[in-house]
Amino acid sequence: MNSRDTLVTELNVLGTFDPIVPEVCQNADYLMLGNLSPQVQLSVINRMTNRPKLIAMDTMNFWMDIALDDLKETMKHVDILIINDEEARQLSKEYSLVRAAKIIRAMGPKTLIIKKGEHGALLFHGESVFFAPALPLEEVFDPTGAGDTFAGGFMGYLAATNDDSFENMKRAIIAGSALASFCVEKFGTQRLTEITTQDINHRISQFVALSNFEMNL
Amino acid sequence: MNSRDTLVTELNVLGTFDPIVPEVCQNADYLMLGNLSPQVQLSVINRMTNRPKLIAMDTMNFWMDIALDDLKETMKHVDILIINDEEARQLSKEYSLVRAAKIIRAMGPKTLIIKKGEHGALLFHGESVFFAPALPLEEVFDPTGAGDTFAGGFMGYLAATNDDSFENMKRAIIAGSALASFCVEKFGTQRLTEITTQDINHRISQFVALSNFEMNL
Repeated sequence: MNSRDTLVTELNVLGTFDPIVPEVCQNADYLMLGNLSPQVQLSVINRMTNRPKLIAMDTMNFWMDIALDDLKETMKHVDILIINDEEARQLSKEYSLVRAAKIIRAMGPKTLIIKKGEHGALLFHGESVFFAPALPLEEVFDPTGAGDTFAGGFMGYLAATNDDSFENMKRAIIAGSALASFCVEKFGTQRLTEITTQDINHRISQFVALSNFEMNL
Repeated sequence: MNSRDTLVTELNVLGTFDPIVPEVCQNADYLMLGNLSPQVQLSVINRMTNRPKLIAMDTMNFWMDIALDDLKETMKHVDILIINDEEARQLSKEYSLVRAAKIIRAMGPKTLIIKKGEHGALLFHGESVFFAPALPLEEVFDPTGAGDTFAGGFMGYLAATNDDSFENMKRAIIAGSALASFCVEKFGTQRLTEITTQDINHRISQFVALSNFEMNL
């Protein structure tokens, strides 16, 4: 099998996945839907007794290819969509990410995060746009899981601070970007198991230094 | 002729260009060397009676292909090199821009700006790195001249403020990026002839909004 066939097989197996939401998670205020089939993602939303305060979802080009109608249905039920630039272009049929964001947000999610890998991430919310840079790295050892780490760090920050304002979403994107920058330093989840809060704060301070300027107008 | 042949012909004509530095420019504190042959660039430096306070140069892959030794010689005499990411990789033979920056700065320029087009620009200076985003645009009408506008805006800002500190270079990059974002809105230099200081300040404030976040650590 080629890698695409392997992916299809794996994702078909995942497509039969029928997740039960544990009782302990029923009152969650923040729900992050990982990149599974849109039907599975929707079933999780429907199985929450109370609608979480904020629902974010990840998805990918594969579901746009084979389950676009389901994806569009699920998108109506979420607050934040997290995708990469290529996926944003495929979903919107627009090259300009500004135009793509308008089209995608009209499909449901009030907030859109477009990840651009080594080129950072854009956050579209209300009439505002925020850009978070990626940290320039000497070496990327293994990029696997960087996107999931970013999404988890982003939603974890929002949940830990319990604040879904635009200003706090900006901080959450920086926190997610900082965590993702650790993820790529070693294989798999190894680096993430080693780091301390101090390490994370130091890395975040590097993002502040990287982006910070004072302009007198 | 194909486009490369045309380019070679045009650049050979430029290669015979023997610029005289007008008297009125002799005492310039800030010298911006546009993208001509490295020999021509060096001849301009040598024809300045007094060495300017700050010399910046633009260059391109073509000179790396046909005049690398001359380019390396000229680079020894400048303070700031302004190139794009592809050129930085070619010049350094390193994919990582962090590693590329180390190698290139060891060739002469204390300061390096790597332009990444729609992905913004990196400024390497001392031990510090600054990242300036590009403004996400709905439409790029004509990108011709955006790099020159960026470089001119950057050096113009430094000259107007007469401050070559790292903090002011950051502001200068934002100013150059703002000007470049106007350049691409219409053909050639047209848009740049229309805008006012107020337009520029408004555009700069969009960059501030795009990049600004407050992080409590």
